[in-house]
Amino acid sequence: MSQIAALSLGPARFAVRRAAAAADVPAIIGLLGVTREAGSDPELTSYRTAFAAIDADPGQLLLVVTAEDGEVAATMQLTFISGLARQGALRAQIEAVRVGEGYRSQGLGEAMITWAIAEARRRGCRMVQLTSDKRRADAHRFYQRLGFAATHEGFKLPL
Amino acid sequence: MSQIAALSLGPARFAVRRAAAAADVPAIIGLLGVTREAGSDPELTSYRTAFAAIDADPGQLLLVVTAEDGEVAATMQLTFISGLARQGALRAQIEAVRVGEGYRSQGLGEAMITWAIAEARRRGCRMVQLTSDKRRADAHRFYQRLGFAATHEGFKLPL
Repeated sequence: MSQIAALSLGPARFAVRRAAAAADVPAIIGLLGVTREAGSDPELTSYRTAFAAIDADPGQLLLVVTAEDGEVAATMQLTFISGLARQGALRAQIEAVRVGEGYRSQGLGEAMITWAIAEARRRGCRMVQLTSDKRRADAHRFYQRLGFAATHEGFKLPL
Repeated sequence: MSQIAALSLGPARFAVRRAAAAADVPAIIGLLGVTREAGSDPELTSYRTAFAAIDADPGQLLLVVTAEDGEVAATMQLTFISGLARQGALRAQIEAVRVGEGYRSQGLGEAMITWAIAEARRRGCRMVQLTSDKRRADAHRFYQRLGFAATHEGFKLPL
C-alpha cells in the first residue's frame, strides 16, 4: 500500500502505488468497465486469481492512482520485458490505462504516462511501448504529444 | 534442452525448445543481427545477463527452433501477460521472431506462429498480440493470413 510516487496537478495531489488485491481489485475492474461482466461472480474470483498472478510476477507492476480522499482515480499496468536485442535491452510496456470519469481532463493521464516513462528510464529500459485502438484518434494525439511514434502495426488475434 | 514441440515441413523436421544460455545465446543474437554490435564484448556479458533475466521470469519463454543437425534455424520470444480485463484474461505476446537466412521461404515462420497460437490457447490465453514495423508490408500480409487483425497502432518511444 506504500506510495511509489506523488503526482501534483495544480492544487490536486495524487499518489501512485502498487495495487493491492483486496483493496483495489473492485475499483480497478470498475475503471476497466467490467463491473457488469462480474455480476455473476460476486466474489470476483477470476479477477482475484489474475491479480495474484500479476502480483507474483516480478515483471509486472499493476498501479493505482489515488486521490487525497483515498479514492482510486486511475490505473495502469506496466510490464517489463527483457530481450536479447539491443545488447539485452529491457523494454517497458504500458497497458490498461484508465482514468475515472470524475478525474478526466485535468492532465492526470499525461502525468501518469510521464511518470511511467521516467520509471522505465530509472529501471534502465531502452524502450517504452504500447498499442492503442486505431479508432482512438484522440489517444493517438495524446501519445504523440508525449513523444511516442506510431511506427508499428498492432496485430491482435482473439482466441 | 528438451524439446517442446516438433515442426514438420515436408521432409524437414525442426524441434522447438526453450533456449539455453550457454548453448544458444550466440546463435540467437546472430539471428537478431547483433553480432557486430557484440564485437566489443566477446564474452557477451550483457546478453548473458539479459538471458538470465528472461530465463528466471516465469512469464517469458525464449525459444529456439533447431534443424535436424542441431543448428539454430530460428528464434522467437513469447511473453505471457496477466491482466484484469476480460475476467482476468491472460494474453500472449510474440516478439523477436527471426528465421535464419538458409531456412526462409519454407513455411517455417508460419509453422512457428501457428505453434505459438496453439501454445497460447493451451495456456488459456484469450488473446495473442504482436507489433510489426509499418515498413514490413510482407510481414503484415503474413500475420493477416494467420488470422491477426491490425486493429491497433503500435507506439514506441526509444529512451
